[in-house]
Amino acid sequence: MHSTLLKVSCPDRVGLLARIANFVAEQGGNLKEVHQFTDPAEGWFFSRMEIETHTLRCDVKALRDAFEPLASELNAEWSLRPAESRPKVVLMVSKLGHCLADLLWRWRSGELAFDIPCVISNHETLRPIVEREGIPFHWIPISSQTRNEAFAEMEALWKSLDTELIVLARYMQILPAEVCARWPGRVMNIHHSFLPSFVGANPYQRAHQRGVKLIGATCHYATAELDEGPIIEQEVVRVEHFHSEADLLRLGRDCERMALARGLRYHLSERVLVRGNKTTVFRD
Amino acid sequence: MHSTLLKVSCPDRVGLLARIANFVAEQGGNLKEVHQFTDPAEGWFFSRMEIETHTLRCDVKALRDAFEPLASELNAEWSLRPAESRPKVVLMVSKLGHCLADLLWRWRSGELAFDIPCVISNHETLRPIVEREGIPFHWIPISSQTRNEAFAEMEALWKSLDTELIVLARYMQILPAEVCARWPGRVMNIHHSFLPSFVGANPYQRAHQRGVKLIGATCHYATAELDEGPIIEQEVVRVEHFHSEADLLRLGRDCERMALARGLRYHLSERVLVRGNKTTVFRD
Amino acid sequence: MHSTLLKVSCPDRVGLLARIANFVAEQGGNLKEVHQFTDPAEGWFFSRMEIETHTLRCDVKALRDAFEPLASELNAEWSLRPAESRPKVVLMVSKLGHCLADLLWRWRSGELAFDIPCVISNHETLRPIVEREGIPFHWIPISSQTRNEAFAEMEALWKSLDTELIVLARYMQILPAEVCARWPGRVMNIHHSFLPSFVGANPYQRAHQRGVKLIGATCHYATAELDEGPIIEQEVVRVEHFHSEADLLRLGRDCERMALARGLRYHLSERVLVRGNKTTVFRD
Amino acid sequence: MHSTLLKVSCPDRVGLLARIANFVAEQGGNLKEVHQFTDPAEGWFFSRMEIETHTLRCDVKALRDAFEPLASELNAEWSLRPAESRPKVVLMVSKLGHCLADLLWRWRSGELAFDIPCVISNHETLRPIVEREGIPFHWIPISSQTRNEAFAEMEALWKSLDTELIVLARYMQILPAEVCARWPGRVMNIHHSFLPSFVGANPYQRAHQRGVKLIGATCHYATAELDEGPIIEQEVVRVEHFHSEADLLRLGRDCERMALARGLRYHLSERVLVRGNKTTVFRD
Repeated sequence: MHSTLLKVSCPDRVGLLARIANFVAEQGGNLKEVHQFTDPAEGWFFSRMEIETHTLRCDVKALRDAFEPLASELNAEWSLRPAESRPKVVLMVSKLGHCLADLLWRWRSGELAFDIPCVISNHETLRPIVEREGIPFHWIPISSQTRNEAFAEMEALWKSLDTELIVLARYMQILPAEVCARWPGRVMNIHHSFLPSFVGANPYQRAHQRGVKLIGATCHYATAELDEGPIIEQEVVRVEHFHSEADLLRLGRDCERMALARGLRYHLSERVLVRGNKTTVFRD
Repeated sequence: MHSTLLKVSCPDRVGLLARIANFVAEQGGNLKEVHQFTDPAEGWFFSRMEIETHTLRCDVKALRDAFEPLASELNAEWSLRPAESRPKVVLMVSKLGHCLADLLWRWRSGELAFDIPCVISNHETLRPIVEREGIPFHWIPISSQTRNEAFAEMEALWKSLDTELIVLARYMQILPAEVCARWPGRVMNIHHSFLPSFVGANPYQRAHQRGVKLIGATCHYATAELDEGPIIEQEVVRVEHFHSEADLLRLGRDCERMALARGLRYHLSERVLVRGNKTTVFRD
Repeated sequence: MHSTLLKVSCPDRVGLLARIANFVAEQGGNLKEVHQFTDPAEGWFFSRMEIETHTLRCDVKALRDAFEPLASELNAEWSLRPAESRPKVVLMVSKLGHCLADLLWRWRSGELAFDIPCVISNHETLRPIVEREGIPFHWIPISSQTRNEAFAEMEALWKSLDTELIVLARYMQILPAEVCARWPGRVMNIHHSFLPSFVGANPYQRAHQRGVKLIGATCHYATAELDEGPIIEQEVVRVEHFHSEADLLRLGRDCERMALARGLRYHLSERVLVRGNKTTVFRD
Repeated sequence: MHSTLLKVSCPDRVGLLARIANFVAEQGGNLKEVHQFTDPAEGWFFSRMEIETHTLRCDVKALRDAFEPLASELNAEWSLRPAESRPKVVLMVSKLGHCLADLLWRWRSGELAFDIPCVISNHETLRPIVEREGIPFHWIPISSQTRNEAFAEMEALWKSLDTELIVLARYMQILPAEVCARWPGRVMNIHHSFLPSFVGANPYQRAHQRGVKLIGATCHYATAELDEGPIIEQEVVRVEHFHSEADLLRLGRDCERMALARGLRYHLSERVLVRGNKTTVFRD
């Protein structure tokens, strides 16, 4: 059964949910799922509604037009799209393939609904496992000299492919701050620690030195400040004294795969609403 | 800031959330939190709304009267009460005091808002830790001969104390089926396994024999059929080969305390909606 | 640094660990890791030792000969092999590919050290993702008429390939009891529930009907009795009322992949010792 | 059945486990449980042995004398004591009682075997729940003027009571560095974040601002550097956007209670071995 997803965030006021629910009801829409959250500190309203498409009187285009005046009155940030549309997601990788392999499987099996216009990497290592899926692989090497041009090339590629989301699936390069700034909420990163612990490089090494009893991974949107963007999802696993640094890397891989796959799932199904440096995630 | 809690479940139809949200808006009520779930298989709608009391135009009594016609039209099961009201909860215990001690602490510290008109036990063991809190302790011993009278005495006590909820906090006696039937959704039990594993007696012993790698506890409403009632909350903990049966008992105690405390919390804050043998729990 | 793995289980007695540790020391062996567990109820001793190979005075063959008299005196069940040897593991699948894809990735990336002489399936569905890895794929369809012959063919194949372990990676057929009996501790299955809950078919459907708040998966050795074999590893994930049966299937897939991957890892590194229907698992 | 606990750490060498196991066997001791870990990076050996007391030929005093020459030869740090001895543990609290109440229950019920010579606090708040257990309560207020004297008074009290361990059960004062230095591995603290995240004050507030999806608690030994001591145990719980800072405080309390109770348990049963800033914890 097809669904239409309405995502709204705006300043809070009395009667807000009634206004939006009335709008949907007037269009004949039956609500399959409604999430609402009001942040009392910020006075901000967040909502996601899943509407049964076949009950609606008009198509998505017309529905958007109809919602526009209300959204404008409410000063709302909003989106409205069929759940079945497949966003275009560019994957960025380096040499480590565990997150890539996991996402490719979820994509191929249909567990996650998105299109992969291409995979970009600064190394050739993962070309075979990408191309055998029929996905274009772009090798864009990076050196201190070519850095600016390389990122310009990438950004041009993203644009030309109508990319909705870029996923840094253990892409070991730091994106230029201005690139992050131009794609707010559209670059997803997986960091290999439970942030804010071990911001920066070599988190597993530092976790091992510190003797923590838990390690983890954090899926977040990349912003101009490294590892400081809005957190979408985190995952941890227990470790013990006998786990070497290599063991942490191994155990961490499963955390990374899980946190990234869940974060991507929430993003694709319009379950993530960002405000300031925090996310509202209506998990499923 | 005071809140008023509205809980509604009814057959699903188009425009349902709008109808209810409109009702609240008409009364001036600002919604702090809205949960909604529609069970597609059952065609059933569940909702919980937390309304800022000071924004409402009338008191709870008048609000109930105003909601009655709509509720009746929708064939709704519903409740409406101030979040600050303190339900009366009778605790039933036997000799094991870990769940009791945990609930007493959460009660005393104000973490959970409820009143304890009395604690009932078939043993004298726990009298001291109850009475030192200023709570009446009733010893109602049970033998095969006195069983019926004992339960009649208890039920009379529950009624006389305006009991809203009875919590079996490791009360080792099985309630008569007809007693459960007379208090549907109002007798909460903590079972010491992750149901439906190890229904019945000695779950830890059987878990040890089976060599499971996880043990747990289940908080559920008691029904006529033993350990088959609607599940509210579950908790598990990892165990290993070196854990003896005594270790399972020890580790299980913490699962029991956590699952029961959370289940009780959800019940007290009107977050549990029961339909058939399943619960909708809007967790916090 | 290469290691040699010694696994011993035998009746308990005073001085047992000293005897075995002395043996290793006499051979010059430095112990990297020692696990020992004595089951007091059974009076049984379990141990696993990881020895630095380069410190040993002789090769594995000679070491086995040297250990034989002591093992015989202790009535021990034991094994001794280089950690670097790669056991031959046949994977059995049906139409669901998530566990297969996961194991193939861990195999390809070298996270798990084993050889896959072939994959066997009763359907053709997964042939492409197997053959592109350069692994032979055998299609052995099963019907009520051909069942006996089919399993005879499989068993012949296992033998001809020097198979050490058979992994049922969501192979939806029930192995004949006599086949299980001929390969004790050598057929590993992943069951899609946290056993002993939901033994048998359609566990997710039944979990959904029962309204549990946790679902899971169990990795165990297959025995003549369905879903009753020794449990190696279990994994659970929290579910809520809004999760449909399809959601449980989705969430369960990750539990299955994790529990199976860990169970296989423990088996491959000689960390699982079976006695009766229970396992001692020296986890890493 | 009574046990004797032997804890040893020393530089690694070939035959070490055999030497120690032989010593135990020569004394007639049957090993119930042996844990061994060799840190390859540090070249250090850690071991804990649980010996059946009734099988030993001599008492603990004589056993210590007998072990002394071997320990000396091995340059070992070691301890040897009956499992049944009850260490004296002073609890330090402020106004928050959840950890105290939890420890008092585990002490009273016998789950944890230790004696509480007194509870010390800088506030009077928790006096009633301490004194009703028959435990002396010392009020030692702290101001910037009296700080040095207050800590001198406390330290004198610890000494006069033969204190083995001091537990800071949400004691909100920072111990002077020199006090920590005089009681290495003997002051246990519970920090209300999953360290190294949110070192210092108000971790829940900062966790809420950062929008993390997990909060936690860390049990560690206090050292001269605040929140930097060796970590013994950590616990986390998932949080979501709808959890207010007050909710984090509430959910965190259960993490704190669990992490502290487990850390204390491991310490009391000689399961924690410290070297440098890391712990080896042989968990049970």
